[in-house]
Amino acid sequence: MKNTVDFKVYYKDTDAEGVVYYANYLGWFEAGRCELLEQIGISLNILKAEKNIVFAVKNVNCEYLKAARLGDEVTVETIIKESGPVRIIFAQKVRKDSEVLCQAETTLFPIDMNSFRPTKIPQEIKALIEKV
Amino acid sequence: MKNTVDFKVYYKDTDAEGVVYYANYLGWFEAGRCELLEQIGISLNILKAEKNIVFAVKNVNCEYLKAARLGDEVTVETIIKESGPVRIIFAQKVRKDSEVLCQAETTLFPIDMNSFRPTKIPQEIKALIEKV
Amino acid sequence: MKNTVDFKVYYKDTDAEGVVYYANYLGWFEAGRCELLEQIGISLNILKAEKNIVFAVKNVNCEYLKAARLGDEVTVETIIKESGPVRIIFAQKVRKDSEVLCQAETTLFPIDMNSFRPTKIPQEIKALIEKV
Amino acid sequence: MKNTVDFKVYYKDTDAEGVVYYANYLGWFEAGRCELLEQIGISLNILKAEKNIVFAVKNVNCEYLKAARLGDEVTVETIIKESGPVRIIFAQKVRKDSEVLCQAETTLFPIDMNSFRPTKIPQEIKALIEKV
Repeated sequence: MKNTVDFKVYYKDTDAEGVVYYANYLGWFEAGRCELLEQIGISLNILKAEKNIVFAVKNVNCEYLKAARLGDEVTVETIIKESGPVRIIFAQKVRKDSEVLCQAETTLFPIDMNSFRPTKIPQEIKALIEKV
Repeated sequence: MKNTVDFKVYYKDTDAEGVVYYANYLGWFEAGRCELLEQIGISLNILKAEKNIVFAVKNVNCEYLKAARLGDEVTVETIIKESGPVRIIFAQKVRKDSEVLCQAETTLFPIDMNSFRPTKIPQEIKALIEKV
Repeated sequence: MKNTVDFKVYYKDTDAEGVVYYANYLGWFEAGRCELLEQIGISLNILKAEKNIVFAVKNVNCEYLKAARLGDEVTVETIIKESGPVRIIFAQKVRKDSEVLCQAETTLFPIDMNSFRPTKIPQEIKALIEKV
Repeated sequence: MKNTVDFKVYYKDTDAEGVVYYANYLGWFEAGRCELLEQIGISLNILKAEKNIVFAVKNVNCEYLKAARLGDEVTVETIIKESGPVRIIFAQKVRKDSEVLCQAETTLFPIDMNSFRPTKIPQEIKALIEKV
């Protein structure tokens, strides 16, 4: 199963120190989680259309080890570290070749968009996650 | 009537050349248009809640004259240049003190969010715009 | 010669109307220009390292035809429309399948980073551009 | 001493769920840290110009409690939680009125831009921080 997404660093990603701005790694991490979920059969668009459920971020813990720079090609690697009835914890790394530039743990939880309140992860989604 | 909004340049706004990234001026221009409309009595949130109408951007023509840099304090100045039954054209400048750094013309048009199709500007909104 | 780059729309690209925020197309256009230049043998990083020259944006004229939405896969198509001693004009489109969502013309000009003043496009860069 | 900065939520800050995108709080937190440092007499621009030292982010731990939405006016509140010879830890909150929407701890460390390596916080900067 493919659990990586590749990005190239453009000016849009960088800041005045010539490196990728610290918040922009979180955009790459979002993409990494989305692609991993698609790989295991979970489409966020379908989940919303059919169940009116959306995953929101509860917590991010991100560590910056080395800067990515203009023109760098980086890979976002994503695994599901833990999952339960009301949350999924992802562990992710941004690598440049074999070097880890940034790593994060992110906790997502499902929201019922009718009530705007936390809900449980639907059974069939849970089953797909547990298969991994 | 106040037709300006002030911003300070942080790392988040800049790119690897040490200047504000060209796309980020468009975020400031959005803020400038929103604040001008609020000043003349038009709330985009209320327009959406009551009429299900949203303004979308049709066209932006933006000219970059001088770069804004980290720590600069800039002012976005906004006027309505032209308005008709189905569009509003804004003329905007980003200034640093008296110097113009960037100027843009932006055309907005109203969308009916039930049909996702262009619609007419509601009469009471038109009246508020024409008073300016 | 490949003159396209592909992007997928994630939450990071969208706004509260559920569509790609108008400024974010300019990030995709930057990527498209960068990749086209690389294809014809021009690396912005090398140009800066060797000549201390950087291309800056003078003008963007962007027309929005149809919205890109979460999960869409889009292609940025880039051509050089015109070039002269002191500028390059790019014409670009964002397509979803065969449909054009957004199109822009962007004028770049070279800056000498020693003096922070406009300069001429170096002869060997000009030759590479004219070969296209 | 003022340790707050105010922001209003525009479309540029939001995502397709109608809320502020999770990474964009980090931009507000950067602004909050910058303004607090300015209040106690530390200018990041001057620190860089005079000492060639820049503060980089080592770690962010961010918890999302409630969503900010289009048109909301929020306040970023910043304190220095801890500081030592080679790092500063900031504790920050984004509030809407009295409600906390998001809170984060962020560790910064100084980099010597000549060597691109971590360095010590200069004595006079340390003195200003310890006065708080």
